[in-house]
Amino acid sequence: MPDALQFQRLGKDAIVPIAVFGARANRLAKLRQLGLPVPLAYGLSVAAVRGIAAGHVLDIADLLQNFGERGIVSVRSSPADRKWGGPETLLNVGLNSEIHAKLCHRLGEPAANALYYRFIQDYSIHVARLDADAFSRLPDGAAVDAETLHRALAIYEAEMDEVFPQNPVRQLTQVLRSMARAWEGTTARILRQARGAPEDAGLGLIVQRMALGLGTGESGAGTVQFVSPLTGEPRAHGRYKSQGQGRDAAENMAAASFITIDARGSSLQATCPEAFDELQSYAEISRVGCQDALQLEFTIENGRAWLLDAAPAERSIRAAVRISVDLAHEGVISREAAVLGVEPLNLQQLLHPHIDDKSPRDAFAKGLPASPGAASGRIAFSATAAAAFAAREEACILVRPETSPEDIRGMHSAKGVLTERGGMTSHAAVLARGLGLPCVVGAAGAKLNMRDKTLTARDGRVFREGDLITVDGTNGEALVGEVKMVEPDLDAAFSTLMEWADDYRDIGIRANADTPADARIARKFGVDGIGLCRTEHMFFEEDRLTVMREMIFADGESKRRAALDRLLPMQRSDFTELFEIMHGLPVCIRLLDPPLHEFLPHSREAMQELADAMDLPVSQVIARAESLAEFNPMLGMRGVRLGITLPEIYEMQARAIFEATVAASRKGDAVVPEIMIPLVSARREVELVKAQVDAVATAVQNETGVKFTYRLGVMVETPRAALRAGEFSQISSFISFGTNDLTQMTYGLSRDDAGRFMNAYVNLNVFPEDPFHTLDIDGVGELILLAAQRGRKINGALTLSICGEHGGDPASIDFSREAGLDYVSCSPFRVPVARVAAAQSAIRSIKAKQPVTKVD
Amino acid sequence: MPDALQFQRLGKDAIVPIAVFGARANRLAKLRQLGLPVPLAYGLSVAAVRGIAAGHVLDIADLLQNFGERGIVSVRSSPADRKWGGPETLLNVGLNSEIHAKLCHRLGEPAANALYYRFIQDYSIHVARLDADAFSRLPDGAAVDAETLHRALAIYEAEMDEVFPQNPVRQLTQVLRSMARAWEGTTARILRQARGAPEDAGLGLIVQRMALGLGTGESGAGTVQFVSPLTGEPRAHGRYKSQGQGRDAAENMAAASFITIDARGSSLQATCPEAFDELQSYAEISRVGCQDALQLEFTIENGRAWLLDAAPAERSIRAAVRISVDLAHEGVISREAAVLGVEPLNLQQLLHPHIDDKSPRDAFAKGLPASPGAASGRIAFSATAAAAFAAREEACILVRPETSPEDIRGMHSAKGVLTERGGMTSHAAVLARGLGLPCVVGAAGAKLNMRDKTLTARDGRVFREGDLITVDGTNGEALVGEVKMVEPDLDAAFSTLMEWADDYRDIGIRANADTPADARIARKFGVDGIGLCRTEHMFFEEDRLTVMREMIFADGESKRRAALDRLLPMQRSDFTELFEIMHGLPVCIRLLDPPLHEFLPHSREAMQELADAMDLPVSQVIARAESLAEFNPMLGMRGVRLGITLPEIYEMQARAIFEATVAASRKGDAVVPEIMIPLVSARREVELVKAQVDAVATAVQNETGVKFTYRLGVMVETPRAALRAGEFSQISSFISFGTNDLTQMTYGLSRDDAGRFMNAYVNLNVFPEDPFHTLDIDGVGELILLAAQRGRKINGALTLSICGEHGGDPASIDFSREAGLDYVSCSPFRVPVARVAAAQSAIRSIKAKQPVTKVD
Repeated sequence: MPDALQFQRLGKDAIVPIAVFGARANRLAKLRQLGLPVPLAYGLSVAAVRGIAAGHVLDIADLLQNFGERGIVSVRSSPADRKWGGPETLLNVGLNSEIHAKLCHRLGEPAANALYYRFIQDYSIHVARLDADAFSRLPDGAAVDAETLHRALAIYEAEMDEVFPQNPVRQLTQVLRSMARAWEGTTARILRQARGAPEDAGLGLIVQRMALGLGTGESGAGTVQFVSPLTGEPRAHGRYKSQGQGRDAAENMAAASFITIDARGSSLQATCPEAFDELQSYAEISRVGCQDALQLEFTIENGRAWLLDAAPAERSIRAAVRISVDLAHEGVISREAAVLGVEPLNLQQLLHPHIDDKSPRDAFAKGLPASPGAASGRIAFSATAAAAFAAREEACILVRPETSPEDIRGMHSAKGVLTERGGMTSHAAVLARGLGLPCVVGAAGAKLNMRDKTLTARDGRVFREGDLITVDGTNGEALVGEVKMVEPDLDAAFSTLMEWADDYRDIGIRANADTPADARIARKFGVDGIGLCRTEHMFFEEDRLTVMREMIFADGESKRRAALDRLLPMQRSDFTELFEIMHGLPVCIRLLDPPLHEFLPHSREAMQELADAMDLPVSQVIARAESLAEFNPMLGMRGVRLGITLPEIYEMQARAIFEATVAASRKGDAVVPEIMIPLVSARREVELVKAQVDAVATAVQNETGVKFTYRLGVMVETPRAALRAGEFSQISSFISFGTNDLTQMTYGLSRDDAGRFMNAYVNLNVFPEDPFHTLDIDGVGELILLAAQRGRKINGALTLSICGEHGGDPASIDFSREAGLDYVSCSPFRVPVARVAAAQSAIRSIKAKQPVTKVD
Repeated sequence: MPDALQFQRLGKDAIVPIAVFGARANRLAKLRQLGLPVPLAYGLSVAAVRGIAAGHVLDIADLLQNFGERGIVSVRSSPADRKWGGPETLLNVGLNSEIHAKLCHRLGEPAANALYYRFIQDYSIHVARLDADAFSRLPDGAAVDAETLHRALAIYEAEMDEVFPQNPVRQLTQVLRSMARAWEGTTARILRQARGAPEDAGLGLIVQRMALGLGTGESGAGTVQFVSPLTGEPRAHGRYKSQGQGRDAAENMAAASFITIDARGSSLQATCPEAFDELQSYAEISRVGCQDALQLEFTIENGRAWLLDAAPAERSIRAAVRISVDLAHEGVISREAAVLGVEPLNLQQLLHPHIDDKSPRDAFAKGLPASPGAASGRIAFSATAAAAFAAREEACILVRPETSPEDIRGMHSAKGVLTERGGMTSHAAVLARGLGLPCVVGAAGAKLNMRDKTLTARDGRVFREGDLITVDGTNGEALVGEVKMVEPDLDAAFSTLMEWADDYRDIGIRANADTPADARIARKFGVDGIGLCRTEHMFFEEDRLTVMREMIFADGESKRRAALDRLLPMQRSDFTELFEIMHGLPVCIRLLDPPLHEFLPHSREAMQELADAMDLPVSQVIARAESLAEFNPMLGMRGVRLGITLPEIYEMQARAIFEATVAASRKGDAVVPEIMIPLVSARREVELVKAQVDAVATAVQNETGVKFTYRLGVMVETPRAALRAGEFSQISSFISFGTNDLTQMTYGLSRDDAGRFMNAYVNLNVFPEDPFHTLDIDGVGELILLAAQRGRKINGALTLSICGEHGGDPASIDFSREAGLDYVSCSPFRVPVARVAAAQSAIRSIKAKQPVTKVD
């Protein structure tokens, strides 16, 4: 590589590609191009830094000469992505006893001593790698006298067996080498790769003339951004330290000044209004020039502001939305760029109440962040206890070893859920996300003793029923006591961004909604329809559960039908309400899916209760429950297998759907219900159910005199159904991929049991990601693609979609668009995430197709 | 269709294709061509018969003219396959009062009366469809006097309101129409389709001059074959009824004569030695000419033998083997034909003791024939009871609701197994087949009460522990008491057939063998190696189970290692013995697969025992067992997931395998062990285990100074592993498809739970067959083909195979050959079946490729 490219002046006309010099160098050059006062700086290329680490010699003298004879410099890291980290900035490189003497003359002895002392200390610790303890930090504000300075030099000499380097060239050489090698260290490598850096990620470095910040006139340093990091509103935010350098202001907020005039203390605006005005204008220039709100690192030198560095302004997701929308409104960026500027997954934080960042946290257990948001309440160790708290209008948190369908009532009563076991797709997790309840699962270290009703934290603290705790489902912690919450605030910027997203989006977003409450939330979040209504959840409400159990215990078809006849009006009113809420938007109803034993009680007490209610001997209840038990319920008698073996059940459901269709259509909106058959694996299953459903439809039309249409489709959850999609498509209007179960079957992996080793698996990189979290493109994805091709080949009008947890995952939405699916269906609370993710995917795909020469 | 083809004389030069005239007509023509005395016969084509059924009129007069003026005839059905059935033969068609009078003159009145009476009766019942009760059967041997004859005619006249038809043309027309229509009846259609007939299967008919069998000189009728139906040895077998017709001899054995001279009674050979000699020579001519031993239906007319019909001789599977081999030895048929002449699945009957066909059967329950053979013994309701019986050297039958791994010891102690629940691939069924134990599962109607220790039959009979019963695993029945057994007798013909099969076979046959006993059986049945040694079964023996449980309960890695260190020498000696038995044949060892909870006790008592043995509080044992419990064990922490999470286990197993390799190799045969990783779904899993196994191999080679090679491969049981086979093949020597689990995952169907609806599913034709029984070519098969292609593309030397129940299924073997797999692995007792099935597949595939002109 030619020497010319080893370092590059970050000047007005310089070409400073991020790939060669890093993001920080690129941005500094940009600021110079915008005419902003950035001290003279040179970028060292990634190749140069790699050479330094490998022991190559760089002609530092040449570089240093550019800064003049007494030019002391700072060295900063400049990786291609700021998130990857990098060695800490080193200030005041080049300082030696000679320059120190000159500075004493120019800035006064205290300032000069402080600078030199700081450099000796930083160099010793970060470059010579001496023990930091040897240089006890001086009390803040304490002056560095000559003796302290000499002691520091003496420590260096004693430890290193040489005098403190006086040659600026040697100093800089050592600093560069030290930083270059730090980048190659194992820990740094692991850390940055964990943040998404590629294996060959390189480091650029920046050597910049020091703006001292100490000395005569108003001098100091600070950081500022002119948008609120919390809301994104225009408002100055930062700190300034008079007679300070680098991050002094940030590191000692108490001793620092505010930026704008503030009743609480001194401020830059009051002390040095000219410099404040300068900074404000620089911020605006850089905001427009860099097409983003920036956080500026600045130094005031004798009343004049210099910009040392700039980074994207700190921002919450709420602020990010506001900043993007504002920039687009002003025409600084395009609407596309505004939509791309928001990380979709972070939007979830906006949709749930969450813990105030400033409040103190006392975490007693750490688990998986299964459902975002936070809630405080009293511990309830059972569904019954939760219901009791709810009856007293006291907030409670349901705490269970794990949840089962019996706990659903408890979850409805609770404000949040904490489980000892389970993974991101355990029963508790899935349900909580559906209900929008904050939830932490697999809380390692927390020991539950259900007999004593105690929850013991890893540190030995014991919690009992009624104790106040908080679950933080956003980061997976359980906290002691009640913690201050911030309510969700969907402001105008949020709505605007959503509208813009929908302009670009070219794939439908539906919601998985089982109840009217779900459906209302989904509507609020701007959904295109219901993609998955799981009818079984309707049967878990207390009055229905009893009838459901009577149906299960019924002896023969006629008794079963009698029980089903009582369930029919309940189902009909469920569906009527759903249709009315959705105002003609499509609603896809899945016929009963879970094995019947899920509806039976598990505990001895509940069995006895049921026996009493049904006037049966308890032994008979137990025997029936045992006879229904399965080795592998996931692979057992559920879904269409139930529908074919006990056809009365689907018959009742079809009738409820069609009667609801008639009822809702009479009130106004024409309803075209979609009926989905779960867990198919052979075409004949669909034929049998279709014949039955068609017959019910004809009957209801004849009885009511109302004509309606409906669509019948299959849920593809077994690999076989995916492979045989062509067959199914001949007699189906749609195929929806139930990616939860399809992932389970494809991997041979139960999501309820995977929690036990999933962490180890992801840590060992056996799976790059939990496949229940991010769709496995290679395996499950291939099955989806195969099925989509085969299905569309037979039936060009086939509607294709995915439903299940993956429906709300941006990577999976990207895949679904590429696969040509018509829509994805996700939890109601994921709908805004999905809308933005889908829009981003569409924009990226349009951009990828545009000629490269077009720049906007 | 031209008239010429409607009926065809079955003469010497006639072309009588089976597809046009049926198999019986074809064979009769063949007999004529061989110069054998077959009475004049005409075949009616399938099209003609179909026309008759549809009401078309056939010129019967023309046909009948060929038989002369007083020619009375028989009419027989001739479908393309004898198995499809067909309407019963009608004799003496054409008889009327005029001919009757002539016959009185010729044969005497009694014979003539008997013939006419018989015809009136048959015609009335089978053609005119009158009530059979109206014609009370005459006592055997009773003469038909004129009055009886007239009464019969009067009954017909009264019921039909017309005189008994006197016109032979009308008689024959009605007979043909009646038989043609009977073939189209719903019941007949369902019956023949159940026996494999296609939907459009047609019926041919044969009209043949009657050889009367009654009258002057020695006359009569019978059937004979000159091979033993039991053993296939040359020996006359049949019965003859003097003055009889049709099946008179077979229907009334007591009144019939023997064929050869016999001390027990009269015989054809004694009565009419010329006719006997004629028959013997006809049998030999037909045997050579038709290339099969035939059963001849003959009539003696005045001392002269006529052949009316011929069919393949009745034969047991043992006889079938002997007949085929004898024919080939004599050069009558090729060896290929001999191999093709045996139904492979029937060979199983030869390999197990089975119930003597002649002994009376008192079945009290009917279930699924899960493992062939039969055994008698005392009922044992628990593994403990079974062990107690075994200790007293009393045969016992283990009777359980279903079996779990805890019952394995009990199964080892028992002679047979009967379970109340489960399907063809339930735990009990799979294990029993592996052990070669007769087994009946899912015994519907039998109610087990484990508390009272009673087994109640559907008819109310109650059995208690110690009662004698017999399980017939060949037909799925449980019988009262002890039943006479026939020991397996693998004669020379069997061995010869197996040798011949191996000459054609082009796919390897290995056995699934877990124990030395299994391996010895497999060797006896001529296996090419062990394709699947499931190491977990080694841990269920009592002393090991205790150590295994200690390992599971061990607190931390070091204690786990201590327990594993005690298991190591046991595993090593297992493997050493296996290697020695197999004498250098390949042995593929699967690393531990089942979830750990399978090794834990289930009952409260067993938990207490374990707690005592391990000196732990029982609560701790229960808690640990609960913490290991899984919702879906099939999809849980098992297979390679266990190996990666607790790497010490596979490390111990690898060491045991390699140390055994060294030990066995030192004694002579070089051993190249194959190590198989179960339940993989991601390449990295294989990388991690491979690194570990490689390290152990190096260590053992260094420690022992003995070099060895080994092969590492994967078991493909998850759809994902099949899809990603290319990735695995880069670092694997072989792939074996575990089709049991692959079927479970592909269908999303647990074989343990499928029993509950599999019958309904097969009956409703949702699945054409139980996919655990016959490989699902469309779904699972596609995954295997995909994987084979992808694997071989990356690694041309990759060894491919299937192991699991399908390995012994002929259709699946056929598929495996076509898919280019290297071998199949099946239960030891299935090995002969597989060898023959593989040979047949190879022969058929060669034949399919040969030009059609070549005839052998």
